[in-house]
Amino acid sequence: MIEFLSSIHSKEKKLIVGLMSGTSLDGIDAALVEIEGHGKQTKVNLLEFKTVAFTENEKHEILQLCHPKTSSVDKICQMNVELGKKFSAAALHVISIAGKSPDEIDFISSHGQTIYHMPQVGATLQIGELAVIATQTGCVTVGDFRPNDMAVGGQGAPLVPFVDYLLFHHPNKGRILLNIGGISNITVIPTNAREDNILAFDTGPGNVLIDSIVAIGTNGKENFDSSGNYAQKGTVDHQWLQKLLQSDSFVHEIPPKSTGREYYTSDVARKLWLEGREKGLTFESIIATVTQFTVETIALNIEQCLKDELDISEVLVGGGGVHNTFIMNALQKRLKQNVLSMEAINVSSDAKEAVAFAILGNEFIHGNTNNLPSATGANRKTIMGKLVLP
Amino acid sequence: MIEFLSSIHSKEKKLIVGLMSGTSLDGIDAALVEIEGHGKQTKVNLLEFKTVAFTENEKHEILQLCHPKTSSVDKICQMNVELGKKFSAAALHVISIAGKSPDEIDFISSHGQTIYHMPQVGATLQIGELAVIATQTGCVTVGDFRPNDMAVGGQGAPLVPFVDYLLFHHPNKGRILLNIGGISNITVIPTNAREDNILAFDTGPGNVLIDSIVAIGTNGKENFDSSGNYAQKGTVDHQWLQKLLQSDSFVHEIPPKSTGREYYTSDVARKLWLEGREKGLTFESIIATVTQFTVETIALNIEQCLKDELDISEVLVGGGGVHNTFIMNALQKRLKQNVLSMEAINVSSDAKEAVAFAILGNEFIHGNTNNLPSATGANRKTIMGKLVLP
Repeated sequence: MIEFLSSIHSKEKKLIVGLMSGTSLDGIDAALVEIEGHGKQTKVNLLEFKTVAFTENEKHEILQLCHPKTSSVDKICQMNVELGKKFSAAALHVISIAGKSPDEIDFISSHGQTIYHMPQVGATLQIGELAVIATQTGCVTVGDFRPNDMAVGGQGAPLVPFVDYLLFHHPNKGRILLNIGGISNITVIPTNAREDNILAFDTGPGNVLIDSIVAIGTNGKENFDSSGNYAQKGTVDHQWLQKLLQSDSFVHEIPPKSTGREYYTSDVARKLWLEGREKGLTFESIIATVTQFTVETIALNIEQCLKDELDISEVLVGGGGVHNTFIMNALQKRLKQNVLSMEAINVSSDAKEAVAFAILGNEFIHGNTNNLPSATGANRKTIMGKLVLP
Repeated sequence: MIEFLSSIHSKEKKLIVGLMSGTSLDGIDAALVEIEGHGKQTKVNLLEFKTVAFTENEKHEILQLCHPKTSSVDKICQMNVELGKKFSAAALHVISIAGKSPDEIDFISSHGQTIYHMPQVGATLQIGELAVIATQTGCVTVGDFRPNDMAVGGQGAPLVPFVDYLLFHHPNKGRILLNIGGISNITVIPTNAREDNILAFDTGPGNVLIDSIVAIGTNGKENFDSSGNYAQKGTVDHQWLQKLLQSDSFVHEIPPKSTGREYYTSDVARKLWLEGREKGLTFESIIATVTQFTVETIALNIEQCLKDELDISEVLVGGGGVHNTFIMNALQKRLKQNVLSMEAINVSSDAKEAVAFAILGNEFIHGNTNNLPSATGANRKTIMGKLVLP
């Protein structure tokens, strides 16, 4: 083991595969990256990225494990190994399309698949057996990060803001990283920040309400507003928008705070749809207003932070929302900071999470702490992860 | 991480805590050992041993997780952390009664609690979160060994024969290690053996039938034959004994083979009890005959091995059966080899399994393979275990 670590530590550049699968169960994201250094000196270069989709059957089987009533120990035990194989295949695939071979890879870092998360009792369960990944790829494998943060009193989430801090802190520029996924979240990195200056929290809806309303308005034919085209054809109803902002309590909560799809449900979307229809709005104007509502929740939360005289000059946007032109334009109109997509600074927003887990693994291998107590609520820093040999 | 490993590697003697909890759910065995060297040069010295019992409630809750119908993901998720805390407490307890402090401990090695085992699909599930143990004790923690062996095609069991080999191989003495637990198993270590010469398999019943019949005959007042006292007061019915041996198919199977309580059930015990009563045997003579049956199944299996001209001069006995004088005397009468209790060579048979996991962890830390393909059926040697930092 020590030989492996010595060789890693002595290398200028490491080849690492980061693996991630989110609760949306779209598939396994695999990123092959080249990493130089560690800690605040980390430099990362994305070589290849691939998402290996789950079949409908796999998605159904995994979802069954996520609910107390449909889960059972035998299914969890078996799926842990099945997913280990699927994660291995995703890693081998991204290595192969990059023209590399597994013996050139320094290690694989896998988030696993969360099947249950209980922040109230400090427990979480990620599956995708690391021993299977190590054996099937022949690579040292690290992973299973969240339990360590929870063992020191944290929520085990979010973990990515730590990586945002490593990669995007700047000696004379304050930055906000905004991720617009189903839910939106931000990481606030003041100029020349230290770890404990970082703020990270959910701002409210991302694409979740827009997606649901598109599905309702198109009778399920479409499930997202591609490029924000529908929104751009509509007109925002400002009176309704103000009402929506006033009645959403989450927007006005003081951070750190987190929300989820259990709050912005399809029932909420259906209610918005009916409300818009009653007001006589077109489909496009309902989408425009709900999209503007999403933008406002983000902007209000950012303004709230900046009250504390934080010096922020850039908002770097990632996640699916970055492809919605209406959102990007409205955000730029609404904020005095420079609004840029991740791609504008050469970061792939699709690959960002998988890359983040490669970096968390790199910190673990170097024996560095890799949680961010100001984001997770942990009572101290800790070195998250588990190591398995091939 | 490398600093920790370098310091471990440079140490002449390491202090390690081994933690084990078996499927019988009696409690957590915690052994504090001093280990010198690694591989075939391993020397181990038991400093302290303690079993921390499970409460009836804990036992009940864990048992629920072991069955598909009563298990669920939320209970498994939460118990993983609860057991992590219980394992931590057991480790801290054995460290404390040995007059040591946690910062003197080099690492903890934990087997965990098996809640499901599926050798047919290469899957197994041990819980008792390693991140919790590392955090609560402040010690580097290793564990979760079985998945690695299964990832290379093994049954994930038995793991202890590898340790038997490390500790009891001898340049000019062949040895059999016999463990008489509920089920009996042996590890055969020929003179000057190499790893691939080792045979390990179950021989049949250990105490399981005797215990059940004592419970039936005493109306549940007693549940084992203390020191073999009942057996010693009875007389073996040799005709019945021969019939039992002929009708037991497992005894005559060719090794490697394994059995369990699902084969030697309480129904089998009840049938034996009724059969003995019909023959007019006293309670004591039924116990004597069933105990002798147990001895014969062990002896027949040992004789079967020795047909292959293996040179074995000692049988070292551990497990609860070592305290049954009738068994020990009958074994010595039956076998031409020298029959000794583990205690006779200064090994605690109670602590043996927990010590074994400390040694498996030591091999992992040194980057040595620590499975025995001839025992588990794996298609190659592998380095089993996961590492977590405090």
